Amino acid sequence: MVDPHAADLTSTANPRVKALVRLRTRRARTEAGVTLVEGHDELRLALEAGVRPSEVFWAPSLVREPDLLDAVGRARVTSVSRDVFARVAYRESPDGWLAVVPAPERPLEELELGANPLVLVAEGIEKPGNVGAMLRTAEACGADAVVAASAGTDFGNPNVVRASKGTVFAVPVAAADSDDVLAWLRARGLRIVVTTPAGTTRLDRSTLGGPAALVVGTEATGVTDRWLENADETVVIPMRGTVNSLNAATAAALALYEATRQRNAADGS
Amino acid sequence: MVDPHAADLTSTANPRVKALVRLRTRRARTEAGVTLVEGHDELRLALEAGVRPSEVFWAPSLVREPDLLDAVGRARVTSVSRDVFARVAYRESPDGWLAVVPAPERPLEELELGANPLVLVAEGIEKPGNVGAMLRTAEACGADAVVAASAGTDFGNPNVVRASKGTVFAVPVAAADSDDVLAWLRARGLRIVVTTPAGTTRLDRSTLGGPAALVVGTEATGVTDRWLENADETVVIPMRGTVNSLNAATAAALALYEATRQRNAADGS
Repeated sequence: MVDPHAADLTSTANPRVKALVRLRTRRARTEAGVTLVEGHDELRLALEAGVRPSEVFWAPSLVREPDLLDAVGRARVTSVSRDVFARVAYRESPDGWLAVVPAPERPLEELELGANPLVLVAEGIEKPGNVGAMLRTAEACGADAVVAASAGTDFGNPNVVRASKGTVFAVPVAAADSDDVLAWLRARGLRIVVTTPAGTTRLDRSTLGGPAALVVGTEATGVTDRWLENADETVVIPMRGTVNSLNAATAAALALYEATRQRNAADGS
Repeated sequence: MVDPHAADLTSTANPRVKALVRLRTRRARTEAGVTLVEGHDELRLALEAGVRPSEVFWAPSLVREPDLLDAVGRARVTSVSRDVFARVAYRESPDGWLAVVPAPERPLEELELGANPLVLVAEGIEKPGNVGAMLRTAEACGADAVVAASAGTDFGNPNVVRASKGTVFAVPVAAADSDDVLAWLRARGLRIVVTTPAGTTRLDRSTLGGPAALVVGTEATGVTDRWLENADETVVIPMRGTVNSLNAATAAALALYEATRQRNAADGS
């Protein structure tokens, strides 16, 4: 009798399983130049963004519909047992899909900018949920790139990948020290606009219509002096309340959309 | 010899300890009409927002500086042992502060609206991080209230309290079924403006200068038909990307700030 749930790979001691488990660490992902995408919806979004997985693992006993198998291109596809999937999954309720894909980050020098570039620079942001929300907004605004400056989180962190809903593969991303990012922005003639509660210009009166980098810092401490000293403009988001606290991803979104508004106004659209 | 870390309450079997542990459930919090605020910074923000705790528990062996003891008003203050605090804390790295405070939610009918009200209605939002970010933006915009319609999360959820950075106590909040919220909005003459990817008006061309309720739905499914049918206007946030996905709290923030912009323009400010 043929078992409809038979799998190619059933031993958790298999070297390929051990290699997958190792990819949970940032170091192993960096060395291999890959990251992991887990979950049906996340993998679908990554594929739609043009990602080409090198390997796809799926658990026939967990997967509801094997529809993605037709979309994974030249990936090496391996079916695995439920036990093996439980070992390699990092989510609490795995749905049977896991792919190894090229790391989203590229070197700063390889980022290509358009004619009137808009770049989001996030300094020191650590929460994957905030990084993911920023990537989604940057993608929605058509930003040229998102750059993490001296950041605590790498874009290949599986929780960032998940929170970004696939956009980490759709927007060019890079990570570098703040000094390198500053030199790169200067060399490309981008105006450096830093958002800070101590800013001197109201966001809606800022100058974001031309080539610009929007810089946001952490919620706890804001941007560092290094960025304030190098700012062409510091902008403040008006707040009426008494607590005066915006989520970091919210601040980034308001600034990105203000830049988009100014660019649309200039285009007459 | 006097132990500088001596505590009033040292037994985890004490009935007050058991009562605190029970408050982790929504049902117990609702019955008692209270919620918990844990952590020095969160408690400070709540106190600054005018919250008056009924009880404050602190662990001398964990607390760095007992500065908040001067600010808790008429609360019953109890020092507890490290063991007891570990039992009542819900955070992973407790810092020795826990307070019982009145629940932030009030009945819909008791919400007071200003002359030109702006209300944020969040339908079905479940993630505490998103609810917290929305509360922070609503507070920053001076919104009159945040109303959860048929929501999965209560505002007294300790993770909402934490993510809101104290603003859940600074902005009036209520929760009710969508039908009750709709009736309440209609009775007060608020324009119902629903954000949806299928909206017919661009956000920057919407009409949000007068009394208005901004309605946002969940990321996964958006707003329900009940709200779409009752909308005076449906608005879409322009997106240039291919993934077309904004975080729910981001969408709420862009809409709230657009409303603020229209109101400021009308004021000439």
